[in-house]
Amino acid sequence: MKLNIALLAGDGIGPEVIEQAVKVSDAVAKKFGHEINWKPALTGAAAIDAVGEPYPDETHEICKNSDAVLFGAIGHPKFDNDPSAKVRPEQGLLKMRKALGLFANVRPTFTFPSLLDKSPLKKERIEGTDLVFLRELTGGIYFGEKGRRDEGETAYDNCVYTRAEVQRLAKKGFELAMTRSKKLCCVDKANVLETSRLWRETVQAMEKDYPEVEVSYEFVDAVAMRLVQWPNSYDVLITENLFGDILTDEASVISGSMGLMPSASLGSDIGLFEPIHGSYPQATGKNIANPMATVLSAAMMFENFGLQEEGKAIRSVVNEALNKGVVTEDLADGGKAYGTKEVGDWLAANI
Amino acid sequence: MKLNIALLAGDGIGPEVIEQAVKVSDAVAKKFGHEINWKPALTGAAAIDAVGEPYPDETHEICKNSDAVLFGAIGHPKFDNDPSAKVRPEQGLLKMRKALGLFANVRPTFTFPSLLDKSPLKKERIEGTDLVFLRELTGGIYFGEKGRRDEGETAYDNCVYTRAEVQRLAKKGFELAMTRSKKLCCVDKANVLETSRLWRETVQAMEKDYPEVEVSYEFVDAVAMRLVQWPNSYDVLITENLFGDILTDEASVISGSMGLMPSASLGSDIGLFEPIHGSYPQATGKNIANPMATVLSAAMMFENFGLQEEGKAIRSVVNEALNKGVVTEDLADGGKAYGTKEVGDWLAANI
Ligand SMILES: CC(C)[C@H](C(=O)O)[C@@H](O)C(=O)O
Ligand SMILES: CC(C)[C@H](C(=O)O)[C@@H](O)C(=O)O
Repeated sequence: MKLNIALLAGDGIGPEVIEQAVKVSDAVAKKFGHEINWKPALTGAAAIDAVGEPYPDETHEICKNSDAVLFGAIGHPKFDNDPSAKVRPEQGLLKMRKALGLFANVRPTFTFPSLLDKSPLKKERIEGTDLVFLRELTGGIYFGEKGRRDEGETAYDNCVYTRAEVQRLAKKGFELAMTRSKKLCCVDKANVLETSRLWRETVQAMEKDYPEVEVSYEFVDAVAMRLVQWPNSYDVLITENLFGDILTDEASVISGSMGLMPSASLGSDIGLFEPIHGSYPQATGKNIANPMATVLSAAMMFENFGLQEEGKAIRSVVNEALNKGVVTEDLADGGKAYGTKEVGDWLAANI
Repeated sequence: MKLNIALLAGDGIGPEVIEQAVKVSDAVAKKFGHEINWKPALTGAAAIDAVGEPYPDETHEICKNSDAVLFGAIGHPKFDNDPSAKVRPEQGLLKMRKALGLFANVRPTFTFPSLLDKSPLKKERIEGTDLVFLRELTGGIYFGEKGRRDEGETAYDNCVYTRAEVQRLAKKGFELAMTRSKKLCCVDKANVLETSRLWRETVQAMEKDYPEVEVSYEFVDAVAMRLVQWPNSYDVLITENLFGDILTDEASVISGSMGLMPSASLGSDIGLFEPIHGSYPQATGKNIANPMATVLSAAMMFENFGLQEEGKAIRSVVNEALNKGVVTEDLADGGKAYGTKEVGDWLAANI
């Protein structure tokens, strides 16, 4: 296969972890006889610094003409504490999600047996955890009208959903549930929000098309609790944009493997693959960031092209590295810590 | 002191747990020479069944003419899975919060040494956890305009905040931080939401009035993670209504003592005190619900009247019961489980 992949390294540790994912992907391509044409493009604070906006048209052109996007991380502290900043790296991410039609963010949370002890949760609570969130990514309060009135004294953000938006996300949820243990949880706040009531009634109406799927409806606050109490009671969860933002991050620390959690954003022909961690400014340039989440995001990318074996090759080399202790300092636990590059080299060499 | 307390038992296990809090409060009143005049009133599903609405005017009159409100729980499953229900128990709760001006929901999360092992988290992660959330309770997306358009195909919920709303909540946060370890965390999503940017800029502007308080700003998704990873790194957290709903519930399970967490809602002269747990329909009428969160909410009520010793008397009898194993089945851990009533009797007798 010939693959054109847009490479958006972004900010902070983004470039370092992306570099490793490229190495590993190239090794996979070589082994399986594919050809990857990487097309680097600017995004995030890096793009603001270079050309004044976080998702330049040129970057969009490159993404649109690629088969997939591999993404590092964006965000820079210089923007966070300036509520009046006019341009922000995050706007680039949102613009890109919308422009590429990436309405479904797929975020798995799973455990690595060798890392169970890393979790803040007790082992018996997390063993066997293997859940996937499908977070709606191009609607809701993120994209509704927002602004100020009364001379800046009043701020507003509108949350809007259409039935069609809910349906297309829920459809992916039902389909995913069918390939797994056929359990779907719709997370909402239908006791308070009208958008949540639309979510709930839409999903309820779809149940009859998937008679084998057992659907449950839970309030977002209850899920925030139960994720900590019994994460392994969940399988597939579907939810709106903001709830998904909060809950997927919460879920990510449960496994003790946050530095290892990949994600995919799907919707149109072009998928975007990125680690769920952020730009981690404190670690930038130190060769200490864990590249495995980005490497596993590349695995999701291959799998999304239907290249299951290629994805598996990556997953198993990551497992091997974990078992052999070829890990960055976040996982070294007093043992030898490898650098970001060294972990990448090892993974690529052992594909 | 002569106290008029509105008693809103509500739904599910509400009446059972309220009954115990009344017993214990009466014992405290007797011991310290106070007189409590309890004024029962209808709310929640119980009120809908009786008079067609969840927070009847008569109930509001009773609350308004009381010194405080002691509240059980509301919510009934028959409304949850009917997105088209016209009247819901929760509307009563929201109406009451607004009508009584209860803009600040105070939700502590603390650990009981004897219960550390109950937590889903590892002991070393939670030891020493003692944090308080101040959740804004009468604004934001809960109270913004909501509805449908396009013949029901589009739903919307508006999130609105004014600077004044943020200021009054933040002021309570700064003041509370001054009485504790002088650390305040403002939780928002300022990288995406305009209302969050208003929150952040408003709190930033107040920093100079509290030079001793160390203020941090964190995104809601990051807090959802760090609450699980290092709950004991937090002290006072302030946040808007919906984020507070999700995060306080998440925080409540961290201590392993969810059935014990009380809360206060303040703002006007009349405070409302309630356990943070819900109406727990499955346990209704079985005499198995843990009444301690409601009893500790009564302790917060006494303390809010300036009756510190009275509050302390309740806290210490609860501690004693925990140490002696006079607990309901959720905490019995294979040992003898007492009934709801029996725990209440024991607490009242040992004040
Ligand atoms: C950076 C931010 C805008 C983004 C979001 O909130 O969606 C991030 O938290 C994420 O989850 O991908
Ligand atoms: C019952 C519901 C409306 C309520 C809320 O969301 O505020 C509850 O979850 C709470 O936190 O008190």
